[in-house]
Amino acid sequence: MIKAGIIGATGYAGGELVRILTAHSKVEVVWYGSRSYIDQKYAQVYQNMFQIVDAKCMDDNMEELAKQVDVIFTATPQGFCASMMNEDILSKVKVVDLSADFRIKDVSTYEKWYGIEHKSPQYIAEAVYGLCEINREDVKEARLVANPGCYTTCSILTAYPLVKEGLIDTETLIIDAKSGTSGAGRGAKVPNLYCEVNENIKAYGVTNHRHTPEIEEQLGYAAGKEIMLNFTPHLVPMNRGILVTAYAKLLPVKNADGQTGLPSYEEVKAVYEKYYRKEKFIRVLEKGVCPETKWVEGSNYVDINFVIDERTGRVIMMGALDNLVKGAAGQAVQNMNLMFGLKESEGLDLVPMFP
Amino acid sequence: MIKAGIIGATGYAGGELVRILTAHSKVEVVWYGSRSYIDQKYAQVYQNMFQIVDAKCMDDNMEELAKQVDVIFTATPQGFCASMMNEDILSKVKVVDLSADFRIKDVSTYEKWYGIEHKSPQYIAEAVYGLCEINREDVKEARLVANPGCYTTCSILTAYPLVKEGLIDTETLIIDAKSGTSGAGRGAKVPNLYCEVNENIKAYGVTNHRHTPEIEEQLGYAAGKEIMLNFTPHLVPMNRGILVTAYAKLLPVKNADGQTGLPSYEEVKAVYEKYYRKEKFIRVLEKGVCPETKWVEGSNYVDINFVIDERTGRVIMMGALDNLVKGAAGQAVQNMNLMFGLKESEGLDLVPMFP
Amino acid sequence: MIKAGIIGATGYAGGELVRILTAHSKVEVVWYGSRSYIDQKYAQVYQNMFQIVDAKCMDDNMEELAKQVDVIFTATPQGFCASMMNEDILSKVKVVDLSADFRIKDVSTYEKWYGIEHKSPQYIAEAVYGLCEINREDVKEARLVANPGCYTTCSILTAYPLVKEGLIDTETLIIDAKSGTSGAGRGAKVPNLYCEVNENIKAYGVTNHRHTPEIEEQLGYAAGKEIMLNFTPHLVPMNRGILVTAYAKLLPVKNADGQTGLPSYEEVKAVYEKYYRKEKFIRVLEKGVCPETKWVEGSNYVDINFVIDERTGRVIMMGALDNLVKGAAGQAVQNMNLMFGLKESEGLDLVPMFP
Amino acid sequence: MIKAGIIGATGYAGGELVRILTAHSKVEVVWYGSRSYIDQKYAQVYQNMFQIVDAKCMDDNMEELAKQVDVIFTATPQGFCASMMNEDILSKVKVVDLSADFRIKDVSTYEKWYGIEHKSPQYIAEAVYGLCEINREDVKEARLVANPGCYTTCSILTAYPLVKEGLIDTETLIIDAKSGTSGAGRGAKVPNLYCEVNENIKAYGVTNHRHTPEIEEQLGYAAGKEIMLNFTPHLVPMNRGILVTAYAKLLPVKNADGQTGLPSYEEVKAVYEKYYRKEKFIRVLEKGVCPETKWVEGSNYVDINFVIDERTGRVIMMGALDNLVKGAAGQAVQNMNLMFGLKESEGLDLVPMFP
Repeated sequence: MIKAGIIGATGYAGGELVRILTAHSKVEVVWYGSRSYIDQKYAQVYQNMFQIVDAKCMDDNMEELAKQVDVIFTATPQGFCASMMNEDILSKVKVVDLSADFRIKDVSTYEKWYGIEHKSPQYIAEAVYGLCEINREDVKEARLVANPGCYTTCSILTAYPLVKEGLIDTETLIIDAKSGTSGAGRGAKVPNLYCEVNENIKAYGVTNHRHTPEIEEQLGYAAGKEIMLNFTPHLVPMNRGILVTAYAKLLPVKNADGQTGLPSYEEVKAVYEKYYRKEKFIRVLEKGVCPETKWVEGSNYVDINFVIDERTGRVIMMGALDNLVKGAAGQAVQNMNLMFGLKESEGLDLVPMFP
Repeated sequence: MIKAGIIGATGYAGGELVRILTAHSKVEVVWYGSRSYIDQKYAQVYQNMFQIVDAKCMDDNMEELAKQVDVIFTATPQGFCASMMNEDILSKVKVVDLSADFRIKDVSTYEKWYGIEHKSPQYIAEAVYGLCEINREDVKEARLVANPGCYTTCSILTAYPLVKEGLIDTETLIIDAKSGTSGAGRGAKVPNLYCEVNENIKAYGVTNHRHTPEIEEQLGYAAGKEIMLNFTPHLVPMNRGILVTAYAKLLPVKNADGQTGLPSYEEVKAVYEKYYRKEKFIRVLEKGVCPETKWVEGSNYVDINFVIDERTGRVIMMGALDNLVKGAAGQAVQNMNLMFGLKESEGLDLVPMFP
Repeated sequence: MIKAGIIGATGYAGGELVRILTAHSKVEVVWYGSRSYIDQKYAQVYQNMFQIVDAKCMDDNMEELAKQVDVIFTATPQGFCASMMNEDILSKVKVVDLSADFRIKDVSTYEKWYGIEHKSPQYIAEAVYGLCEINREDVKEARLVANPGCYTTCSILTAYPLVKEGLIDTETLIIDAKSGTSGAGRGAKVPNLYCEVNENIKAYGVTNHRHTPEIEEQLGYAAGKEIMLNFTPHLVPMNRGILVTAYAKLLPVKNADGQTGLPSYEEVKAVYEKYYRKEKFIRVLEKGVCPETKWVEGSNYVDINFVIDERTGRVIMMGALDNLVKGAAGQAVQNMNLMFGLKESEGLDLVPMFP
Repeated sequence: MIKAGIIGATGYAGGELVRILTAHSKVEVVWYGSRSYIDQKYAQVYQNMFQIVDAKCMDDNMEELAKQVDVIFTATPQGFCASMMNEDILSKVKVVDLSADFRIKDVSTYEKWYGIEHKSPQYIAEAVYGLCEINREDVKEARLVANPGCYTTCSILTAYPLVKEGLIDTETLIIDAKSGTSGAGRGAKVPNLYCEVNENIKAYGVTNHRHTPEIEEQLGYAAGKEIMLNFTPHLVPMNRGILVTAYAKLLPVKNADGQTGLPSYEEVKAVYEKYYRKEKFIRVLEKGVCPETKWVEGSNYVDINFVIDERTGRVIMMGALDNLVKGAAGQAVQNMNLMFGLKESEGLDLVPMFP
């Protein structure tokens, strides 16, 4: 039995980790860290866990935690994990960090976009960017995994095959993303109140959302060159789900008849299949079917599809996931499974709930 | 491996059965019956099941189905199951009927409230009312289980201990219920459109909702006498969940000091504990905590609590469940588990999803 | 032009006052009081008012305000208005208090249920309970109007005619109420976050909600005797709207044929018509039509109807209103119109918005 | 008093016309056309109009209607208005067509995108595209106005000034739009059911939505050249509101210092102000404020703003409106006001409702 500790167990992502790990046959959660609710019963904070979790909330003492558990999940604000990280901890436990602290390889990019100093840049190189479908082998060897962001997971996976295979002009790439409100966290702020979010949609963080450099860096690795793109998130009146609609110019290819032209539907589809055919958690939908967030709710799936616009020469790529599962806790567990040599999908056979 | 067939697999309750049985380690669904979608892939009707269910929808031939499976679930409109039932079928398979056809023992009551003739009244006596927590032993022996209604499950379980133990005056019992919209089914009707339900609440079926006689009959068995009560359902803008708020006068009891008075909180609590302490799926909450539908969403739990009003001498009983799980598909699987000698909670360790 | 000042202009009720008064041809708002946003532009707090309201938020100096305006609306937390009230203010301006400070005539009841000391009990007797349809003539003469609560307006108006005419046994009266989330105010609290309210319904304040004594007192006046009842509010995932479902035993009446029995539908209907036929803002619906909150959204209407249950001898009364309009700001303007001799519906010809 | 007839009065756009015209001091609705509800009371179809509208629904006899009214609004499916149009009607009444029949000047484009034959192409040239802020003078003279689509109104107005002034490369223009569900109409279809829309977001009509050629044509007029763009609509779980997020490369301009570069915030802002400063219904927001649909709900406003991304050289333009008001009925009334020489904003001083 793997012993797990969660720091930040009472945020929405932390709560989802508890939900998933509670049903995971190989893991036992032994530390529910939550600075705000120390000594309070976890099930009083999340009543859905009544009679399921009996433990009380603990503090966020990572040193102590490292002695007691095999894996630590940090579902904490930016800066926390970096400020705590040291060799002693890494020598004792594996760490899956759900914050952004170790996602961006270029520390100056991190410090610029996040506006804070990175307290342990010496571990950035070692940290593996935990997008399992892309970095699977590295994750297996990692001590420290940087669990990708919710928007970034969806954005990268949606565009990755076409970027990797050079089918699109990355200079034209635009990502318009829509997220449910759990992505905003459980903080008591007026803009997150029911009456402010309900019956409303808005863009936010236009041109400056922090997931932008993360997407750019990762897609840049795929492209083999620097990428700059527009990423615009929107807040949608629903609890869970991220939908990404991405636009890019298709690069001309030589067709069967020797002519130069747009790649066909089948050619683009084949590229998606090349990368995702064997991926359990990525479902490339049938022709003409648009991803919907409701179809992946509660599960670790990403649903992806695309449409080619002959008129404008663009491909419209679409991806949908549950921001708390594949966009956070589910992917964290997927990473943990890989790190401990378990079956990658252990505890993640979650069937999407509809309606 | 138990082979299961579902008739009405493309309604919301049928869909939930598929979701639950797909993850049930002892059951394999081999027949997805859906008259409306015959020959269409099930996963095209419910895209959440893409790459999970590969089968096509079949017709609703119960005779043929009885030859192929061990258990049939009928998630069909009222009248269908009764019209199909015969000795041949019951001799071959076990049946869990999610419709109302075999719930009400008094056939004239059924015919009056449902406005249709009962086509196989000879099986009513044999059918077991599948409220597992109350009729567990009978369910184990049953060939035909009448799976209780969503409102009725919540209403009965919320009031049962106090009715059974004679703590309340059943003549004063009033049940005010609130349900999410999946209870209205997947039929394409204007009143169920998004814009009609959203940002709206209303009562419906006032004084004449069909779950009334079912509640009255079952609570009548508990009371050992006929009960007539008011049951008022309301439509709430949410997908899932039923909340019941029930009101009744407490009957005076002799207190410790020999005085006659209202029973104390502890005395009422003890009665709830007497019946539900060992019940996995019934959670009697801590003092002062009101049930919320969100805390049981996606799970088979019923959350129950009560408040005594010293001023008016009433007890306010509250219960919450997920209408598609404990109120339909989950309870149907719970019944099936009992009928086949499996662990009662097999496939039902569903942790509620929040948010 | 009547000059109006609003204290608490940035709460939801205050915001609704601004919306209504902005379109009121006889009123000009000259003071947008909001302690939290002093010196900030009102339209930056409520962007819907951009280019409509140009003013900045002011403090809540009632003394100063009294010199500048003709009427003050206090949409403030309990205790504020009572603590500010004095003869000097009342001699200069009319006051419509949207808080509970002057609603309850029995100061000890107020202090018990609200848990605070009343700072100016000497004005309680003078204050008129501003339920216009019942106290119209008194409101016209008032200096100080206590604007009724949202739940109470709906509850009282729904039951009033039957209580007043003695058709129901008030000892059996139970009020089950459901409210949208704007009733909880704009405070940044976790339970009011989108993800906590959405897809959820719960009861709260069971047996101890503060609107209980207000309803009891007012219906007690109608009945000519003390009333004690159960009032249970529920939180519904929608922005606006209150629905009340009220239950009571009908008292037997002598029928046309000299027999004693339940009053007929026509007899009960006639009683509603007697009180509400001429009331513009109360719509007694046609037989069989249940009130829905969506049908009154954004308007000052209360929709009311009832069903008689011959089986149990109860009448189920239902009422729906918009908690921010007839339940708060709209009624406040209705009171102001009466106090200033304007047409009662001036500025309140708001057509309900659907969907 | 202008007499108005509405054909299609029981759809959502028709219902909104009724709401607005009911409060319009210069107009009286004398014909509530609704083929589906002939002879039924209008207020039974839309209970919000109980005691406000007393009339019954009529058929859609446009000939007869033309004799009785001064203006006809057709809120009907595509093809209806074109099939009815003739000189006799146009000689008697003014017509505001809310369908797409007369919006697109190129009849072959219409027939291709809508898949139906145009029955009266001879009136296309005469019909004025009723985007008041752009075609105000022509509208004043028109007999037949083609009321713009909801998405198109929002899309065009959001991008118009920058296209008109040549600030953006129209070949790079991408419009990602999000709409509430009332835009899908009141038809009883499974995809519009509450449980299908709620807690869900999806794109639809990708690359082939019918509003695409309408946007292209109108922006093409502004640009003085043909435009082809990507337009992707999304369905959002809310009743009302459209948000448009539009992306385009800014064209380099000569700056004050003689250098070539991106236009500054102030330069772009000045272009928006040039066109919209005097427009009552277009609000260009303050720097850094993103439009939100909730801020315009129930009103005729369009809220617009933009952000320049120095990194990518793009401008992100955003616009929000209420699809049933400025996107349909409100704009129709605005057109009617112009056609009859009334004040353009008559009956349209609707203050947005929040929350």
